[in-house]
Amino acid sequence: MSDPAARIGKLVVVGVGLIGGSFALALKEAGRVGRVVGVGRSRENLDAAIELGVIDEAIGDAAQAVRDADLVLIATPVGQMPEVMAHIAPALGRSTVVTDGGSTKQDVIAYARRFLGAHFERFVPAHPIAGTERSGAAAAFPGLYRDRNVILAPQPETSASALALVRSAWQACGAQIVELDAKRHDEIFAAVSHLPHVVAFALVSMLAKRDDAATLLGFSGGGLRDTVRIAGSSPEMWRDICIANRDALITLLDDYVQELERARGAIQSGDGNALEGMFERARTARRRWLLKEPR
Amino acid sequence: MSDPAARIGKLVVVGVGLIGGSFALALKEAGRVGRVVGVGRSRENLDAAIELGVIDEAIGDAAQAVRDADLVLIATPVGQMPEVMAHIAPALGRSTVVTDGGSTKQDVIAYARRFLGAHFERFVPAHPIAGTERSGAAAAFPGLYRDRNVILAPQPETSASALALVRSAWQACGAQIVELDAKRHDEIFAAVSHLPHVVAFALVSMLAKRDDAATLLGFSGGGLRDTVRIAGSSPEMWRDICIANRDALITLLDDYVQELERARGAIQSGDGNALEGMFERARTARRRWLLKEPR
Repeated sequence: MSDPAARIGKLVVVGVGLIGGSFALALKEAGRVGRVVGVGRSRENLDAAIELGVIDEAIGDAAQAVRDADLVLIATPVGQMPEVMAHIAPALGRSTVVTDGGSTKQDVIAYARRFLGAHFERFVPAHPIAGTERSGAAAAFPGLYRDRNVILAPQPETSASALALVRSAWQACGAQIVELDAKRHDEIFAAVSHLPHVVAFALVSMLAKRDDAATLLGFSGGGLRDTVRIAGSSPEMWRDICIANRDALITLLDDYVQELERARGAIQSGDGNALEGMFERARTARRRWLLKEPR
Repeated sequence: MSDPAARIGKLVVVGVGLIGGSFALALKEAGRVGRVVGVGRSRENLDAAIELGVIDEAIGDAAQAVRDADLVLIATPVGQMPEVMAHIAPALGRSTVVTDGGSTKQDVIAYARRFLGAHFERFVPAHPIAGTERSGAAAAFPGLYRDRNVILAPQPETSASALALVRSAWQACGAQIVELDAKRHDEIFAAVSHLPHVVAFALVSMLAKRDDAATLLGFSGGGLRDTVRIAGSSPEMWRDICIANRDALITLLDDYVQELERARGAIQSGDGNALEGMFERARTARRRWLLKEPR
């Protein structure tokens, strides 16, 4: 694997959903991959993946699938990664590079360190910052990663050649590579991704519990619809992420509840200035940092 | 005003923003209005409104503007409505119909009952369920109300002819009319609109306060961007709505914080089942009631 831009003869994707499937499709489109083998729990999803040309072959057993692989992408919900790693480790070859697509990094790195054994030096922790609220192989498309960031969190043990291969594969998908410390990664994404998901899930969940939910939601407009778009995301995947990143997430959840309590206090007491100040801070920050408008 | 589909000779719009401006443009496009007079606090915005053909004339004083008007739409933030109503009441003619575009109805009706005096029977409380996060006359466009709901909350005193005029004007804008009790209206929109705005404003406000806000938000993706789109809305307008509808909103805010605390508890204790159950309830409700997918 001395030339990182070399073709990946055999790619194994464990978990052929939006993330894993789009990686396979993008590498195929770039002419960077030979054979793609998919592994997954759902036969129906794997059949769809073959039908759609996302993978070339489905193999039920991950350990069997990874034999002779050049690259293995573990793209399951993070809660399943320890089991996958423990299962494939004995079957991994001496030059097979392993990477992941998990939204949390400290826990995945700890699992890999524990379960991949000597193969840990060829494990490259990664997190592509892309996705939609849709899931499954049918949601995959080759352009998902174009101009998106992929975070890599290499460890002291990570070999340069393994890092170069994963880096070049994501670049072939059109992505930009950003290296981040794993702890910092988890703090950042707790704030800009994991917390917003909890915010959206909890909002719809609370409204859905009401007896008049159908009536209420029938009157909703585009505002609510956009606010809770990400509440359409995979419950299992987000359950795992929230629990994996619990420390950073709980700190932020507490800060958020405090901010809501501040808003509540201002509304209750009719303190228009305090309320308008909070709303104005939000509007300004959104313009400056989310829309990246000048000023 | 016996023929409700008659042309509105003179329309006065107090507050020429997204809501008022789009109403004027839609009626113009439908050939339903003669002259449109705009009233507002900002000369710059009124000049833009004339320039863009949203209004034909700007008059600084609302009382002077409403003389001989067939229809007056008050489309200011709801906090300004009592002052506007008190100011125009003495100048209103005996056949002038007054309506509003406020997002809360009980408070606006109470103001109108108090400040419009004998003209209250020609006041038609209304709330068009449309809008974007943009504001000002430049944001107005004639298609804003096409296929959207407009809620009317007529009172026992409301005259049939005034109601018919307002109903037909909104229908000419392409909107569908729904009549609702004012209290029920306020409860429903506290849930599907006012609460989501507070949720979004508070989320960005909390993140914006951090020293590392620029870095954090620089890593955000489409998920956060959609979740907080409505945090780009007018702080003044939303300050007024939240305070006007405080009772219904605070009840819902408390329910929401409780739901977040439930999520926090499940995350803290690693109770994946509870967390997944909440997320699944949200995803199902979104599909069923927000996307209106079958099943």
